Amino acid sequence: MSRPIGVFDSGLGGLTVLKSLVQSFPSENFIYLGDTARLPYGSKSPKTIYNYLYQNINYLRKFDIKGAIVACNSASSVLRPEEFKDLPVVGVIEAGTKAALNATQNKRIGVIGTRATIGFGAYQDLLKQLDDQIEIFAQACPLFVPLVEEGLTHDPLTNLICFRYLKNLVDQQIDTLILGCTHYPLLKPAMARVLGPNIQMIDSADAIAELVGEGWSLSRQTGEGSVQVLCTDTTDHFKQMAGLILDTIKIDEFEKVDL
Amino acid sequence: MSRPIGVFDSGLGGLTVLKSLVQSFPSENFIYLGDTARLPYGSKSPKTIYNYLYQNINYLRKFDIKGAIVACNSASSVLRPEEFKDLPVVGVIEAGTKAALNATQNKRIGVIGTRATIGFGAYQDLLKQLDDQIEIFAQACPLFVPLVEEGLTHDPLTNLICFRYLKNLVDQQIDTLILGCTHYPLLKPAMARVLGPNIQMIDSADAIAELVGEGWSLSRQTGEGSVQVLCTDTTDHFKQMAGLILDTIKIDEFEKVDL
Repeated sequence: MSRPIGVFDSGLGGLTVLKSLVQSFPSENFIYLGDTARLPYGSKSPKTIYNYLYQNINYLRKFDIKGAIVACNSASSVLRPEEFKDLPVVGVIEAGTKAALNATQNKRIGVIGTRATIGFGAYQDLLKQLDDQIEIFAQACPLFVPLVEEGLTHDPLTNLICFRYLKNLVDQQIDTLILGCTHYPLLKPAMARVLGPNIQMIDSADAIAELVGEGWSLSRQTGEGSVQVLCTDTTDHFKQMAGLILDTIKIDEFEKVDL
Repeated sequence: MSRPIGVFDSGLGGLTVLKSLVQSFPSENFIYLGDTARLPYGSKSPKTIYNYLYQNINYLRKFDIKGAIVACNSASSVLRPEEFKDLPVVGVIEAGTKAALNATQNKRIGVIGTRATIGFGAYQDLLKQLDDQIEIFAQACPLFVPLVEEGLTHDPLTNLICFRYLKNLVDQQIDTLILGCTHYPLLKPAMARVLGPNIQMIDSADAIAELVGEGWSLSRQTGEGSVQVLCTDTTDHFKQMAGLILDTIKIDEFEKVDL
């Protein structure tokens, strides 16, 4: 059996990344860790998030993973991949940033995320570092996660809140918008009503799949890889939501673990 | 020096309770613990919340407290005060329920809270247990906490969301509404627009002060008691918000601690 790929997030959001990976590389084996006992990371200090990130990756290493994907934006903000010399590690921030730079024509890029992600500035820093011509417009959207978790993805309230958050980015004539939170893809239809047809949304799930597909030479062959989902605090809600997000993807094993 | 009173919450919300206590009993000494590294409790399983509750109370006991106040609704849901034989412990649920039963005339009581608090049903159970004639109308309001944390307490969006959540309770002709979350008092003006003048809101902060004032024979004398604030993950945001919530109340000591 081929060595598995580890994916972790503080909670459910990263399952959108897992889903995209399984769809792109169906014969690979995946192990997902949702650190639900300690979620959300966004409200915690960088030092605490850093400690959690390293605990989680070290836990996943016990499964002899061939690489780790940090599907949590807050954890991705404090990731220093060079510290894992023998293990390839990529985060959603690196992936989203590179995809946005490939997509933009006018070099005006918007970034949305939680207050922690936007405040920490990791997307903005990496964009500037890779291309100092880029103009960046960042906006924190703290109501988006609760709207998604409330199931209000299609609701007039959500349309109003999207307008409130995104109107200024449209006025700034961005042509690319990085969705800097794994929950946000579920709001794409509502956001598209404000953004119109000319602004491209960059979804980290797709961006990660593209990045590791090349870098880690993963197999795109059809097949039946295994999918294992672990979380640090099982609740029925998590299991139910995981099923909804993963949709047709079968979970081979679902387990509560202690780190 | 008189033995201090311990107050704990998963985060900032319980500071509204601390403030009310300090105003009612200014010569008493208080020690507040905000378990910010592990917040929010609401999304975690009852067993995990129970473990955190006992860790926090045991931590506070090191300061020789004369009583502990559980200002967190989720933790209050799983509290069994009889397990602390030698230490008086009260939670916001007991306090809010008793105050609501005193206030209602028509025995129709509404309860609002996070999804966890409402789903767990502790308010509903205790109300029924103390008076089986009560008709209870419960409503989860998961967008209220992020609205408060966004500072949108006075905003047309908040008015719309209040209407969405509270309209049904008004139609049910409740005369009393328990605010089952320590953040909610900050939304009183917006909620009042939907509730009108005939529905009384029960604020746990005031209810707790009333309950322990009698039960624990605390001093209402003027004086300069000390206020110590501890949290498990200091961030600048916490310190800043704590200052805003406590307003004119002076914090004598602010410290990050490990449990």
